[in-house]
Amino acid sequence: MVSRRNFMKNLSAIGLGAVALPHSMMGFSTASKEDKLKLGIIGVGLRGTEHLRNLLLREDIEVLAICDIDSNRLKIADELIQKAGRKPVRSFGSDELDYRNLLNMDELDAVIIATPWSWHVPMSVDAMRAKKYTGVEVSAATTLEGCWELVNTHLETGTHLMILENVNYRRDVLAVLNMVKKGIFGELVHFRCGYQHDLREVKFNNGKQPYGGGVEFGENALSEAKWRTAYSVNQNADVYPTHGLGPVAVMADINRGNRFLSVSSYATKAIGLHNHILDVGGPEHPNAKVKFKQGDVITSTIRTARDETIIVTHDCNLPRPYSLGFRVQGANGIWEVDGNRIYIQGESPEHRWEDASSILERYDHPLWKKYGELATGSGHGGMDFFVLNAFVEAARRRVAPPLDVYDAAAWSALTPLSERSIAQGGAPQDFPDFTKGSWESRPTLNWLSDRY
Amino acid sequence: MVSRRNFMKNLSAIGLGAVALPHSMMGFSTASKEDKLKLGIIGVGLRGTEHLRNLLLREDIEVLAICDIDSNRLKIADELIQKAGRKPVRSFGSDELDYRNLLNMDELDAVIIATPWSWHVPMSVDAMRAKKYTGVEVSAATTLEGCWELVNTHLETGTHLMILENVNYRRDVLAVLNMVKKGIFGELVHFRCGYQHDLREVKFNNGKQPYGGGVEFGENALSEAKWRTAYSVNQNADVYPTHGLGPVAVMADINRGNRFLSVSSYATKAIGLHNHILDVGGPEHPNAKVKFKQGDVITSTIRTARDETIIVTHDCNLPRPYSLGFRVQGANGIWEVDGNRIYIQGESPEHRWEDASSILERYDHPLWKKYGELATGSGHGGMDFFVLNAFVEAARRRVAPPLDVYDAAAWSALTPLSERSIAQGGAPQDFPDFTKGSWESRPTLNWLSDRY
Repeated sequence: MVSRRNFMKNLSAIGLGAVALPHSMMGFSTASKEDKLKLGIIGVGLRGTEHLRNLLLREDIEVLAICDIDSNRLKIADELIQKAGRKPVRSFGSDELDYRNLLNMDELDAVIIATPWSWHVPMSVDAMRAKKYTGVEVSAATTLEGCWELVNTHLETGTHLMILENVNYRRDVLAVLNMVKKGIFGELVHFRCGYQHDLREVKFNNGKQPYGGGVEFGENALSEAKWRTAYSVNQNADVYPTHGLGPVAVMADINRGNRFLSVSSYATKAIGLHNHILDVGGPEHPNAKVKFKQGDVITSTIRTARDETIIVTHDCNLPRPYSLGFRVQGANGIWEVDGNRIYIQGESPEHRWEDASSILERYDHPLWKKYGELATGSGHGGMDFFVLNAFVEAARRRVAPPLDVYDAAAWSALTPLSERSIAQGGAPQDFPDFTKGSWESRPTLNWLSDRY
Repeated sequence: MVSRRNFMKNLSAIGLGAVALPHSMMGFSTASKEDKLKLGIIGVGLRGTEHLRNLLLREDIEVLAICDIDSNRLKIADELIQKAGRKPVRSFGSDELDYRNLLNMDELDAVIIATPWSWHVPMSVDAMRAKKYTGVEVSAATTLEGCWELVNTHLETGTHLMILENVNYRRDVLAVLNMVKKGIFGELVHFRCGYQHDLREVKFNNGKQPYGGGVEFGENALSEAKWRTAYSVNQNADVYPTHGLGPVAVMADINRGNRFLSVSSYATKAIGLHNHILDVGGPEHPNAKVKFKQGDVITSTIRTARDETIIVTHDCNLPRPYSLGFRVQGANGIWEVDGNRIYIQGESPEHRWEDASSILERYDHPLWKKYGELATGSGHGGMDFFVLNAFVEAARRRVAPPLDVYDAAAWSALTPLSERSIAQGGAPQDFPDFTKGSWESRPTLNWLSDRY
């Protein structure tokens, strides 16, 4: 009864108290104490806190521990936990390796890792070794060695890892996946996707606020600018491929009958971040001397075993509105997120685009039909609800997650492969087969269900 | 007086009789007999006839000769000429080389070549040798040797060649060019373009009509399907790059301070044309056995000397609405034709797309301001008027055309280079420098004038 009350209270906090909920949505509020998934969160920066906030809305999980080397972030998290009426949790973060003490807690079933990218592999490896069902934020790894470490540790330990790619659960993306699996687009031929997001005010701030207000990065900055900007200085690569590539990979059955074969990548000049420093900080600011290696627009063309191509874009340093640039094209039709348009042969008027909205609504995914109203209150337009839901549901059952360690490795491998290709003037680079030959026989998942 | 009367009659035929014309537009109706450009047209298929129709609207040119090996097409052209109240012209076409007799006519100043692609180079070379100012349809060449032949013949003979790329004169393209030259987008970084056009009913017909109605190609077919489809059978390449690449190349100052350095190309599987034959002709149709080499979607990424990238798409075999997929991106803003949207830093609302229409209208090109109403009656949304106008104006002055032999060579070179790259799994191919080193010093054209 308490759990039911809290659940309704939480719904009401996100503005859904008055909404009549379908019975199925009550499912996770009636989990018995023993069913509850016991969770730790490593990293409660902005992203980890967002997960915490969403997890606190669920009565079928208990957060037992959090870890951050920034005591201020621990404090913010503790306050959220208290405000949600939950029991106090254990805190870790006395040094950079204190997360291992969190992993030593026998009572934890699962952990979520939401730390800077360089920590994803060591923490995931340690978590799998500690037998914690592991959820890791994107991107999972930044090197090929890191990708292999994830896969091999999973094989050695039998512990599962899920890559927490929320865009795979975006409403339009899931509707299109639904259409793909129902064959509406016919045999698939070509895809486009990418991360096209003006991050200049994420990569630089004034050290007091997380976004903008100055042109500091590294030690003088706050939040992501503290660590993320270094990748723009040091690495000419698509350093953030999974928001685009994850959804496309699932549509294309990557690692399940298909795989990435090779990629060519090209980078443009790097002027966007330098210009931003000049504009905002002035030419005398010490950061005006920084040379950025990361080209402003990076284009990778991937070839798959089924003879499709995927164009992946990384475009984060120039003034531009956000777009993940999706395109899904098959023998029978095409969807493009830019312009929100679609064409289905035999259904659309000949040679004419249709507005995609009504068709995507018709193919709304069962998951969104079931949880859509509830999800809308969570972060990133509802995606965060679903990716956490999938993680929680898979972890509780101790079954393989829908976005697994092979996906994490294959998608993340674009970073080091694009770096090599760019350095070699666009020369194609082979993708490792992280499934070690099993990609041909691994069965596709049932993406038409409403389970997770 | 006759000329003025005819000009108005023709305007009225295209529905502009009642429109008050600015004085400047009368310019070419008052040309004296000696000023008139004397023209021959080689190839009066659908495209050549379209040019003829537009040329007959102009009183500042005289068409003196036409050539086609199909006597039916000559007849259609003769009828148009008669209907326009013009003097009968000499006809050629007794065999495939009879065009040379047309080129031997001393009184001709210029020729337009609108024949199948394989004839573009030999005819252009012969035309330049015959000292005829040469306009050649797109694409200008299909091999690197052909590209070099065009350039070298120009250098040997001093005769000019213009590539008749009409999309360079599309209203939105010229408005964006105007913005580019005025610095609105800032330093340029990245471009996209391509030819994305479902040509299945161009590549196949029933031998009685030019578009569709059957799945014949080659000898059994009519019009373009007679010869164009063979490139889909035999060549895995971007065989038609210039509608996209031409406009981008001019914006990027290619051959005038910038140049294409290298390209990587990838092709998808080829299923679209075969599926179409099965759907329309049935599995028993003999063409159901044809193997098509041309991948359905071909993606080329070009690197330029200014460290920009250009993504060029060829996508002609699948069901999809038309789009040339333009994107122009610089340090200060971005335009995308798909979704008709634009973002200019400091002007657009932050992180938000604006509808491009009103901004493109504000930057409407002087040429369109001057000739827009007149042009709208010509083919392809007015573009054909402008490309012919540029050709006629440049030819009459005997000056270099705005889209010259180096442009023709550089743009067309994508076909053989993409073929090689695809055959080598995406390996980058170097572009020849057709300017032989002069690209760095060749001055940019004044694209802000309303002359041509």
